[in-house]
Amino acid sequence: MGQQVFQHTLANGLVLLAERMEHVRSAAINFLVPAGAAYDPPGRLGLASVVADLMTRGAGDRDSRQLALALDNLGVDRDESVGAVNMRFWGSTLARNVPATLDIFADVLRRPHLPDDELEPVQALALQDLQSLEDAPQQKVMVELRRRYYPRPLNQDRRGVAEHIEALTIDDVRDQYARLFRPNGSILSVAGNVEWEPLKAQVERLFGDWKPGEDATLPLTASTPLSEHLHKDTQQTQIALAYPAAAIGSPDYYPARAAASVLSGGMASRLFTEVREKRGLCYSVSAWHETFKDRGSMLAYAGTRAERAQETLDVTVGELRRLSLGVTDDEIDRVRAGLKSSLIMQEESTSARAGAIATDWYYLGRVRSFDEVQAAIDGLTPAAVVGYLGRYPVRGMTLVTLGPAPLTMPEDR
Amino acid sequence: MGQQVFQHTLANGLVLLAERMEHVRSAAINFLVPAGAAYDPPGRLGLASVVADLMTRGAGDRDSRQLALALDNLGVDRDESVGAVNMRFWGSTLARNVPATLDIFADVLRRPHLPDDELEPVQALALQDLQSLEDAPQQKVMVELRRRYYPRPLNQDRRGVAEHIEALTIDDVRDQYARLFRPNGSILSVAGNVEWEPLKAQVERLFGDWKPGEDATLPLTASTPLSEHLHKDTQQTQIALAYPAAAIGSPDYYPARAAASVLSGGMASRLFTEVREKRGLCYSVSAWHETFKDRGSMLAYAGTRAERAQETLDVTVGELRRLSLGVTDDEIDRVRAGLKSSLIMQEESTSARAGAIATDWYYLGRVRSFDEVQAAIDGLTPAAVVGYLGRYPVRGMTLVTLGPAPLTMPEDR
Repeated sequence: MGQQVFQHTLANGLVLLAERMEHVRSAAINFLVPAGAAYDPPGRLGLASVVADLMTRGAGDRDSRQLALALDNLGVDRDESVGAVNMRFWGSTLARNVPATLDIFADVLRRPHLPDDELEPVQALALQDLQSLEDAPQQKVMVELRRRYYPRPLNQDRRGVAEHIEALTIDDVRDQYARLFRPNGSILSVAGNVEWEPLKAQVERLFGDWKPGEDATLPLTASTPLSEHLHKDTQQTQIALAYPAAAIGSPDYYPARAAASVLSGGMASRLFTEVREKRGLCYSVSAWHETFKDRGSMLAYAGTRAERAQETLDVTVGELRRLSLGVTDDEIDRVRAGLKSSLIMQEESTSARAGAIATDWYYLGRVRSFDEVQAAIDGLTPAAVVGYLGRYPVRGMTLVTLGPAPLTMPEDR
Repeated sequence: MGQQVFQHTLANGLVLLAERMEHVRSAAINFLVPAGAAYDPPGRLGLASVVADLMTRGAGDRDSRQLALALDNLGVDRDESVGAVNMRFWGSTLARNVPATLDIFADVLRRPHLPDDELEPVQALALQDLQSLEDAPQQKVMVELRRRYYPRPLNQDRRGVAEHIEALTIDDVRDQYARLFRPNGSILSVAGNVEWEPLKAQVERLFGDWKPGEDATLPLTASTPLSEHLHKDTQQTQIALAYPAAAIGSPDYYPARAAASVLSGGMASRLFTEVREKRGLCYSVSAWHETFKDRGSMLAYAGTRAERAQETLDVTVGELRRLSLGVTDDEIDRVRAGLKSSLIMQEESTSARAGAIATDWYYLGRVRSFDEVQAAIDGLTPAAVVGYLGRYPVRGMTLVTLGPAPLTMPEDR
């Protein structure tokens, strides 16, 4: 089956993307707006999460309850999520219910009531979400790592700060909505059994008269990443680390992904073999590539009992450093097989495709075709990975640990 | 597209199921063996998890490393998991790689090496897995609830007991494998773009000469469910409760599922509305139906800050009890819309279908067709749900809480 991807930019700047998947009955809708946690103003950390929750509490002609009823009646599985840069409104339903669902999404995005009398329960939920992190050390260590590794405001987490959340007013919420929600910079993607022309016409009707706004800027603060141990009387020690890697637009992007796969991409990957299988040091160990538009990073995580935490860190960091000594043809063969399988799984899921075409456009300003991704995977070689590692050596690691005792970063010999 | 499901029982009792999905390129393999945690002998709790891990450490002609390499080379995403009753071996890959993957699965299931020298790291990992539960109160409260609610041995958790795991010998592992792994009672299912006749022939070749064994019995102990508060200095209080409901084979099964959906099946569901939206009591609250062959249950979970925990319990239990006063036509309409959407999402996923046909066979001895499930959903009425709740009243709740202070079960007025 040939891939059918459509794209249209409205006069006001809103980007519409669609992937037609003829053999399914479902469809997924994905709306990205650059209104993530990085846009929370100083002293208002947690605002994006409160905005996202309040936006679904009544919009257009429907109050909070009527909006929930309308989406349930359409069988829509939905979710709002707040990333560092983008806020995401997602829904999945039957393809035939896409037009009715888009009508509701347009209300939520353009005509939310942001009701004063629901601010308090929304703040209470945001505080709960923040507090629950204290009982989830595995998540907490990653939040604390990103806080110390990325420059401000990319390092801001959606959960914010308790005192800031408590002090929020409905005007803060309404101002933030007015400042950030606009068609330019936003991306609407739909994947599933949908027809392009009627979809485009509906989106023009629903969003065509949305007035563009000023692009919100995200001024980065110069910063030095900071390693730190956070004391907590937990059973296990949580280990998280990060260091610079190629960004998604770079020619080094696929070699960087391949390096992450050699480390952590399958049963026979290096971290899995050395940390988990051979030594039984810990159950959860992984490394992965993470990207913003202008910067990429390699991150790694391990959680283990306190007595074996130093050994776990030593072995993990040793494997990261050992990468630059070379990777084998066999390893690259396995990386290719794994990435190809993942690509084909993604091709079969409306949610995965709606997400992928939107993030491709956000990062690259275009949608990568399956053929392009396939060719890039086929073109991977050990030399390309080693060349990449020469340009992005494993150096300047930021290490954050959480647990009963601090660890020592092993020396680089 | 018409549904194409095939079934064949080998002479030795192994059940083979396949669902052909012509429009995909992937396939999923799912092998269920009645060798779950409930079969762990007294004093050997945790054995099933150790058996599952050791089984993938070398099988047939391949040692541990060669086995990992072979699966990675095929791009197989795989996982072993230990449920209460069944152990599950799962793999997902390209449809064209199914034959080669099945060859390897046959080695793992029939010819595992269970190597003595890898027992120690496997034990270490099992201990880690158990210990990590102490830092994950949300998971821990569910384990502790099931331990007190279900009769022995259905109440046994895969993570076992530390002293038992430490004392395990390779003979324990080999005896358990020899006792439980057999074709009769096991179910192999495949869903994806596969051809039935070649698949059947291959499975006959790989498993036809596997000798049937004696059916392992699971003698249930009479027990009284026990409510309890577990003290822990966490930020949040975890609340978990359970009470009897209809089992999957019962005519009351779909009304029981509908009752769970009215409580917890969408944005406008009762628990979501009353606990989360209106009062902001907690972010995570849900109720769901859970089944064994001979018994069903309704379970509910909420996690909230200690000061609001009693109110959260009161409101949650109040909603569970209020169900029997009746449900509305509108609520049942929304339940139908939600269940139909879920059914269609499931139809499009090879992993979901491979899992569904195997569990259908395990529970019912047949595969439910989409038409049958659809008709049952269409047939739901408020009267059927209320009639069901008359036969399964909300009574005899088992409550387990975990946090800084105990709670009081609200009186039933």
